Amino acid sequence: MAASSSTAFLLKNPSNTSNVSSFKNPTFHSHNGYFFTPKRSNKPISITCSTQVQNPSTTTLPNSQSQDRVFNFAAGPATLPEKVLKKAESELYNWRNCGMSVMEMSHRGKDFVSIIEKAESDLRSLLNISSDYSVLFLQGGATTQFAAIPLNLCKPNDSVDYLVTGSWGDKAFKEAQKFCNPNVIWSGKSEKYTKIPSFDLLEQNPDAKYLHICANETIHGVEFKKYPTPKNKDGILIADMSSNFCSKPVDVSKFGIIYAGAQKNVGPSGVTIVIIRKDLIGNAQEITPVMLDYKIHAENNSLYNTPPCYGIYMCGLVFEDLLEQGGLEEVEKKNLKKAGILYDAIDESGGFYRCPVDKSVRSLMNVPFTLEKSELEAEFVKEATKEKMVQLKGHRSVGGMRASIYNAMPLAGVEKLVAFMKEFQARHA
Amino acid sequence: MAASSSTAFLLKNPSNTSNVSSFKNPTFHSHNGYFFTPKRSNKPISITCSTQVQNPSTTTLPNSQSQDRVFNFAAGPATLPEKVLKKAESELYNWRNCGMSVMEMSHRGKDFVSIIEKAESDLRSLLNISSDYSVLFLQGGATTQFAAIPLNLCKPNDSVDYLVTGSWGDKAFKEAQKFCNPNVIWSGKSEKYTKIPSFDLLEQNPDAKYLHICANETIHGVEFKKYPTPKNKDGILIADMSSNFCSKPVDVSKFGIIYAGAQKNVGPSGVTIVIIRKDLIGNAQEITPVMLDYKIHAENNSLYNTPPCYGIYMCGLVFEDLLEQGGLEEVEKKNLKKAGILYDAIDESGGFYRCPVDKSVRSLMNVPFTLEKSELEAEFVKEATKEKMVQLKGHRSVGGMRASIYNAMPLAGVEKLVAFMKEFQARHA
Repeated sequence: MAASSSTAFLLKNPSNTSNVSSFKNPTFHSHNGYFFTPKRSNKPISITCSTQVQNPSTTTLPNSQSQDRVFNFAAGPATLPEKVLKKAESELYNWRNCGMSVMEMSHRGKDFVSIIEKAESDLRSLLNISSDYSVLFLQGGATTQFAAIPLNLCKPNDSVDYLVTGSWGDKAFKEAQKFCNPNVIWSGKSEKYTKIPSFDLLEQNPDAKYLHICANETIHGVEFKKYPTPKNKDGILIADMSSNFCSKPVDVSKFGIIYAGAQKNVGPSGVTIVIIRKDLIGNAQEITPVMLDYKIHAENNSLYNTPPCYGIYMCGLVFEDLLEQGGLEEVEKKNLKKAGILYDAIDESGGFYRCPVDKSVRSLMNVPFTLEKSELEAEFVKEATKEKMVQLKGHRSVGGMRASIYNAMPLAGVEKLVAFMKEFQARHA
Repeated sequence: MAASSSTAFLLKNPSNTSNVSSFKNPTFHSHNGYFFTPKRSNKPISITCSTQVQNPSTTTLPNSQSQDRVFNFAAGPATLPEKVLKKAESELYNWRNCGMSVMEMSHRGKDFVSIIEKAESDLRSLLNISSDYSVLFLQGGATTQFAAIPLNLCKPNDSVDYLVTGSWGDKAFKEAQKFCNPNVIWSGKSEKYTKIPSFDLLEQNPDAKYLHICANETIHGVEFKKYPTPKNKDGILIADMSSNFCSKPVDVSKFGIIYAGAQKNVGPSGVTIVIIRKDLIGNAQEITPVMLDYKIHAENNSLYNTPPCYGIYMCGLVFEDLLEQGGLEEVEKKNLKKAGILYDAIDESGGFYRCPVDKSVRSLMNVPFTLEKSELEAEFVKEATKEKMVQLKGHRSVGGMRASIYNAMPLAGVEKLVAFMKEFQARHA
């Protein structure tokens, strides 16, 4: 998965440009001021690191805008496709000549209904979601679902299992304690959430109504590559996919519920998507707030009360873009390539950079890493920011760095980061 | 409060313009094709009804855009200030040269923190909110607050009072039944929600922890002009102000909680604002979902989890705009004028149009009306739509028509509607 860039190391472009006159091939000169010295090959290597144009296919972008764009490695809200933002910009004031913004539309009017219906239809196409499942567009983030799931699926004494591979799985477990009888069947906490256990070794409760996982832990960078099967033959698998939703194909039929905050891969914050098998709907506890009752939302096609209309519209634009890219198989290929380049750069740094996560479960979306010389981490983040690569600081609970490289992060962004990492290492090794 | 337009009736501009050659004064010819015959005065009357420019002060608006804009009388999501939309459009792709959209910003980064802090600060200025109150930006609409309020303020056996003046107050009462012991101390249902009772006659429960009202019933057009005082000296007044929030000055200190969905007067859907007296925070029932616990949100300045960032940004732009207009005293003057013109047109129609609501409590925001000849209502809505006045159909639960004329509805929009109503009447009387 290593890109060509990982076979080179970089020297910062000296301010005196005469120093580089020995470079004969102009492709050695990248857009962002780095020069490359081939390490293992004599073949000239070109790295297209650029803050100018993130999506070269969007030829209509005015240069003045794209030149100002940074590479945003934030964990969420996160970078969105430039093409989608440009479309949203062009339609903000007057959506398709209807005379108003999407933000002003009645959620029960035909225009908005066409928007939400297309968003749902495109999401169903992307994930191949069968008619056995409802797709809901809700509010309140995954954190609201931490309560809604046990409230909808359990009686107060029911047992449920949580496989805790990071902070979010732990939060989901703790919230469930209010509404049922959850058990942590495995926790990676003692190993600082760097692993996922062998499923054979899990001691699942045979009566557990469901088995809950967080498919990708945003803070710790741990991602399930395959999924466990509930031991209880009537048990269901539930996954919080907030930070890897729509980043790769998923066999939805293996899950009872998949849920995700939109603000990583598919839209702005304020929209939560819940994909739920229809037979699981309709058994909420009496103390369930109406807004947490899946039955209400399913029966009303997510229009029981006013939904987050503009966020749903933005998600729809992203779904359209993902389909245009060729669907989630193609998206996964791009994500594998980006993550491969970055993990290679870390692993080939001779220990200068370290990623603590077990290689077999490293996230394609969130790449946490530390510096051997931890005193340099603040400087790393500061210099990267100057180079227009922002939000690289790790989550406050774990420190270090984290590069979130969701669907909308262009390959050029990861290449630029890798080039910077090598140059930084060369200066500080 | 009647505008000059209410003293004229209109004749549709005949397609053969020679028919109107007898009009000597060009001011008789309005922008939208109506001609006026003075009824009570010989003075020529000019009505500036126009779909071209809703906010003439925004001189930089390209005509091509404004010409396409409709007058949107939807009850929410609703029309937003044209100036705010233009600003949002100009900043969507790259917010103040930070290199990204507001939709892409980390909610913990300094840029977004500056946005939410300014939004809160401007709202505090608008409503003169003291430091005894927390201001929270939440999700889930007022409907989520229907549960959050009893969950945060009551034990399961606590009594609370609901004064039900419309469908929304009734929904709030029904949701509270899950979490405490609510009593309806008065309901306007038998009179089709057209009244608000004299407060002296209310039989409040002396032990009620709170008294809940819906300050403006969006569907029925009933608005409190003054507020009741809880009989229990420790009781607090709680108001759902979703559909008249920031439409006029309010003495916040009289309330324990004011809450409002943003999508009527202050922003797009997906943001709920809660203003809560700080001493009421911190006593939630154990079964309260973490996302419904005011303590969590107050302690984290609405950043416990990812908030609806873009919606909050839009609310901030609206708050700025309201302050620039001179604050809520000025805003109320405009709203009084708009509502006055419309109610006058209804009341002076000789029964052709009727508003069922008691005159003393008619809403400045939502104006429901019916036609004496109810068979013409569909035609009325259809013709208005052709004239670029949309979403005038009444709520499906009550029928008839409803004109929602929130802060952002320009005077010109109401004037155009009134002109159309008179012309329609002239043709169908």
